[in-house]
Amino acid sequence: MRIAIDAMGGDFAPESIVKGINLAKKEFPNIEFQLYGEPEAIQAHLEDEKNVKIIATTELIDFHDEPVKAIRKKKDSSLVRAVKAVKDGEADAVLSAGNTGALLAAGLFIVGRIKQIDRPALMSTLPTADGTGFDMLDLGANAENKPEHLADFAILGSYYAANVRGVKNPRVALLSNGSEESKGSTMIKETHALLSNIEDINFIGNIESRDILTGAADVVVADGFTGNAVLKAIEGTASVLMRQIKNGIMNGGFTTKIGGALVKKELSKLKDTMSTDSAGGAALVGVKAPVIKAHGNSSPEAIVSTIRQIHRMLETDVTGQLVKHFEDKN
Amino acid sequence: MRIAIDAMGGDFAPESIVKGINLAKKEFPNIEFQLYGEPEAIQAHLEDEKNVKIIATTELIDFHDEPVKAIRKKKDSSLVRAVKAVKDGEADAVLSAGNTGALLAAGLFIVGRIKQIDRPALMSTLPTADGTGFDMLDLGANAENKPEHLADFAILGSYYAANVRGVKNPRVALLSNGSEESKGSTMIKETHALLSNIEDINFIGNIESRDILTGAADVVVADGFTGNAVLKAIEGTASVLMRQIKNGIMNGGFTTKIGGALVKKELSKLKDTMSTDSAGGAALVGVKAPVIKAHGNSSPEAIVSTIRQIHRMLETDVTGQLVKHFEDKN
Repeated sequence: MRIAIDAMGGDFAPESIVKGINLAKKEFPNIEFQLYGEPEAIQAHLEDEKNVKIIATTELIDFHDEPVKAIRKKKDSSLVRAVKAVKDGEADAVLSAGNTGALLAAGLFIVGRIKQIDRPALMSTLPTADGTGFDMLDLGANAENKPEHLADFAILGSYYAANVRGVKNPRVALLSNGSEESKGSTMIKETHALLSNIEDINFIGNIESRDILTGAADVVVADGFTGNAVLKAIEGTASVLMRQIKNGIMNGGFTTKIGGALVKKELSKLKDTMSTDSAGGAALVGVKAPVIKAHGNSSPEAIVSTIRQIHRMLETDVTGQLVKHFEDKN
Repeated sequence: MRIAIDAMGGDFAPESIVKGINLAKKEFPNIEFQLYGEPEAIQAHLEDEKNVKIIATTELIDFHDEPVKAIRKKKDSSLVRAVKAVKDGEADAVLSAGNTGALLAAGLFIVGRIKQIDRPALMSTLPTADGTGFDMLDLGANAENKPEHLADFAILGSYYAANVRGVKNPRVALLSNGSEESKGSTMIKETHALLSNIEDINFIGNIESRDILTGAADVVVADGFTGNAVLKAIEGTASVLMRQIKNGIMNGGFTTKIGGALVKKELSKLKDTMSTDSAGGAALVGVKAPVIKAHGNSSPEAIVSTIRQIHRMLETDVTGQLVKHFEDKN
């Protein structure tokens, strides 16, 4: 297995990325890690070069770059070069913690779509109260979708949950504003009808965003606009609440502060359960190879989780299975 | 001021409703409370009949009833009768904690839309970290919307925030999947263009759902499908997190439990800040009179908050102002 890595993308790059690779090398001695970026900056954090290839690049795509323009102009950026390695057959998957839009655009235009899939989607494994998690897509690769796209998302998500997360017969639900079949926009109602007729998935009907975090479904399908809004609402609410709790305790009286110190461990454990770090990065699904986006602020541990995820995707050949599924369709 | 109240709607009706009215009577001696429902059940909880009128009704719309069918068939239900009192000029506003869909349908078909408003919207004041709150609409009165509807929502929300919450020159934002003007679906981009050209509102551009709880806007405009999904994602996340914290503390070791006892007050204060109870109920805006939905599980205190909200709506005549605004438009 060969993974192309954009060593320069992310808030703490290349340090966090390279430190993550130092850890991942120990866990996965069968992976070749191809690090794209400035050799000296990379070497400064690299423990040793065993199973590592450093490929020098001269340009950088940052968070301010306009995605499509950036991938056209900055052909020698670490991001574009890493993605191109997959296209050229030099790597089996690509990982970046950099500019999300640029990675999506590069995945779409350079790696390319699986035949018969019009719209690849961004998917993440989100945490649930019971610790099992669920896969949600599209989280914003698309600004709007048609029912046919969502039908593809259902299959992409189902294969991913079954293979990468090992969920048997994953329960696939459609995000709507009511659990009844009659609820939702015209687009959602049409999607409901389509999903009901796909034999290869275990469609359990509509789900409301109130219920997704409880683990009621293994895969939640949404259009990119709504999926993105819901994801950000979850993140925003969790962040505001955790900060409020912290502030409340810090600004509380003496006993509250003591209490805070005593529950600190429990709260940080909770933060871990509800964190998306351990589940890996967001996958652009529907393209011909694994294209994975790690959080911009990924810690070395989060990078290891993402390598673990990619390893599992390659090991199960989930992408190859999907290519076959869609080829057989027609 | 005369408020028609569906005394039989809600999880704890009529007890919670009537007990709320007992409290509200003291705060608002100038309000006539018209209680629709079973006289004996109401009287069992009513302290005295000062400023109270009990109107006997024989039918009940519950949570299982199909909304439109229910309001057509159950003409002598407490909900329909209370709404009809507004239509007939016997009351100035109506409050129910019952079936949301039925109240929306009754508001729409019985009270009726303000001239030139195609689609009334459901609006709530949601909590922010800084305690000021923001008004969000549409929260699901519509399953899909056109840009023109959202332009109306912006005006409805802006008038409400200015009058009822006393916000000067309310900042109105459009929910999208990026803060830049170029982000969002075709519908959202068209709405952005429309809102930019409305002189009567202080449009500050797009907002992401990640940022709404921080108080970055006073009014957040969304289509009914997305607004509903975001609202339920916020509610679901807050509920899962608070439960996780509680479980973590309860199942923690001895010191964690002690700590939990010491921070309990702070956590319950936080729960109050982040609760929607104190801001009143959800308003169906765009109809000719205040139609207010209190939470199904409203406590007597939540009912008082809702009466306070209705009092403020009537006192400022925000609905009358809106009628005039839309009349003047053409």
